Amino acid sequence: MTTSYTLSRRAQALTSSAIREILKVTERPEVISFAGGLPSPATFPVERMREVTEKVLREAPESALQYGPTEGFSPLREWIAARLSHGGAVVPASRVLITTGSQQGLDLLGKVLIDEGSKVLVETPSYLGALQAFSLFAPQFASLPSDAQGIVTDGLSPEQLAGARFLYCLPNFQNPTGRRMPLERRKALVALADAAGVPLVEDDPYGELSYGGEALPSLLSMNPDGVIYMGSFSKVLAPGLRLGYVVAPEHVLGKMIQAKQAADLHTPSFSQRIVYEAVQGGFIDRHIPAIRSLYAAQCEHMLAALEREFPKQVSWNRPEGGMFIWVDLPEGVDSGALLAKAIERNVAFVPGAPFYAVNPRKNTLRLSFVTVPGEKIDAGVKVLGELLRAEIAALPAAA
Amino acid sequence: MTTSYTLSRRAQALTSSAIREILKVTERPEVISFAGGLPSPATFPVERMREVTEKVLREAPESALQYGPTEGFSPLREWIAARLSHGGAVVPASRVLITTGSQQGLDLLGKVLIDEGSKVLVETPSYLGALQAFSLFAPQFASLPSDAQGIVTDGLSPEQLAGARFLYCLPNFQNPTGRRMPLERRKALVALADAAGVPLVEDDPYGELSYGGEALPSLLSMNPDGVIYMGSFSKVLAPGLRLGYVVAPEHVLGKMIQAKQAADLHTPSFSQRIVYEAVQGGFIDRHIPAIRSLYAAQCEHMLAALEREFPKQVSWNRPEGGMFIWVDLPEGVDSGALLAKAIERNVAFVPGAPFYAVNPRKNTLRLSFVTVPGEKIDAGVKVLGELLRAEIAALPAAA
Repeated sequence: MTTSYTLSRRAQALTSSAIREILKVTERPEVISFAGGLPSPATFPVERMREVTEKVLREAPESALQYGPTEGFSPLREWIAARLSHGGAVVPASRVLITTGSQQGLDLLGKVLIDEGSKVLVETPSYLGALQAFSLFAPQFASLPSDAQGIVTDGLSPEQLAGARFLYCLPNFQNPTGRRMPLERRKALVALADAAGVPLVEDDPYGELSYGGEALPSLLSMNPDGVIYMGSFSKVLAPGLRLGYVVAPEHVLGKMIQAKQAADLHTPSFSQRIVYEAVQGGFIDRHIPAIRSLYAAQCEHMLAALEREFPKQVSWNRPEGGMFIWVDLPEGVDSGALLAKAIERNVAFVPGAPFYAVNPRKNTLRLSFVTVPGEKIDAGVKVLGELLRAEIAALPAAA
Repeated sequence: MTTSYTLSRRAQALTSSAIREILKVTERPEVISFAGGLPSPATFPVERMREVTEKVLREAPESALQYGPTEGFSPLREWIAARLSHGGAVVPASRVLITTGSQQGLDLLGKVLIDEGSKVLVETPSYLGALQAFSLFAPQFASLPSDAQGIVTDGLSPEQLAGARFLYCLPNFQNPTGRRMPLERRKALVALADAAGVPLVEDDPYGELSYGGEALPSLLSMNPDGVIYMGSFSKVLAPGLRLGYVVAPEHVLGKMIQAKQAADLHTPSFSQRIVYEAVQGGFIDRHIPAIRSLYAAQCEHMLAALEREFPKQVSWNRPEGGMFIWVDLPEGVDSGALLAKAIERNVAFVPGAPFYAVNPRKNTLRLSFVTVPGEKIDAGVKVLGELLRAEIAALPAAA
């Protein structure tokens, strides 16, 4: 007879990331893509990688190629802990778990903290990859009111947070909006979560990519026992190594380590040693400013193009860091329909709707500017401007 | 107030692998450890790794360090598909998913095929890491009668398999027993599963490690649409790269790809390219025989020591490949208690009980011989022999 593969309910509910599906279309070289979330390969420290890879294989080949502890390579855990310890806040290495990319941290969080129907709080909108990872464990999402500065803490009460398994947010240059949460909001959010007894999950892949201003204190530094922090080397070294980390109180981290053991035993020993060697001697602090200034210039270029080409009914933010600009279209314009027309003209972006846990707003979209050369930014934004003008002209006149 | 971390029910049920806990104890250099499942670092092709790593960073640094497709690096998928295609069976590359170690394949299987309470069939005993990975999704295990040749197919009826989400087995040099399933049993099992409409999951990390005899046909080759096959580079190149793969019919693989996207986006691009380059030009087929003959000699050494030192009431198998020997102790001897005494004398092994999905047999243990030098094998087995003699002498006389 025919073999019958009965899928789990969670598998039946799985859908592919809208972004990855779009990315497939946009692999054609003639497409100008503002869709990707890929860092610019111009920022990859290839020479440094050669140097440290050679060193690892010369000095510690057997350990680099052997199985390792689930928690991660101890010297790397210690380096991360030291880097996150500033001001009064000391992060012990025993709170650090190395993950196979930051995405794995999200999967482990879901496994360890979400039961079917558990309440999980997120920003509006939020990172799609997190929504996907958590969804496998069937939580009930609640999306908190948010504006250009992140979660609106004014008017939010501890009662509204209470009972949630955690509140997930990206305070620095959020994916997809590029927005940063100001200091006062951070303080208010930490106080609210603390009053409600609800853990905060601070996802921070973009924190190092500030274009100019001072870094703001992490939520972790404000309440180490109340925050699970997630970081990544994908945006400051290279994503192809899949190297991220989670910082959490020991009793939660212990469970995440057990879940990771079942998930992939441990993150590749080889990548961990390469990253450890790569960041030594202050390299990372010499390298990051080059990424920042490239991204700042790219962002400025796109902002100028938007100013020039987009109709006045469209609005967007001015990011202070990171990789994304978030665009608000007039009510009634559907960015999904816009994308179909844009792809016909070889331009791509990501519609905003999939980033909403509930009540998707179809009149939003995300633009990534970091990998596209200036003249292609100009050409692509010009096409989008033309299409938007046509869409807006076709809207029924307001009553 | 204090932040309250409410663990999911699955996290509450999580326990650490008995093996990894034992391994921590046995990291002391004075301990003779037969506990690990680590391949011998003497088999790691360090020179080859240097050569191909350098090549990857010279020829394709930007792709090797960038994000990649969730399915994996296409040329590597094609290479794996071609290697698995022999006899009449052709495996298309579209059925291959690259995973972050074979362990990740187990996690993805659990996510995609197991609901709470789903029936999952396993061998008696079975691989502990699989039991752990599946357990997160709360199946109901049924453990099939097995002997020194694997699952006993005589007397097994399709009705006993029916309704299971899948039957998980390791036909080649199984972890923990080292046993191999003979051809007739393979044929019978494939026919039974087919008659019951139940998918087989064939986990095959050790298939290449046959000491001498012909390789036996895979279950996959006997029924490509009825088998999910899992392979790994951990035992033939190096485990520190965490490179495995799953082969499954497209509609199942598609769901596993979506689950993988949420789990870690993709397996490190860098490792995938390194492995792809490493296996080229017939290298892998020149390299594997060296591993085989090392392990065969190590195995022979341990078998001789067991013959010499173990009391006659104890029995064990003679593996034809792989990394493990399985030992049966007389009824009433508890290998957990034996381990405590052995560790006091600086010898370690893994008790057999955790490898049983149900009804653990405490009078069993697993010995790994591949990393221990000959004279330490002699010394360690001598200690175990002495302890066993004392345990057996202390047993109450048979009625």
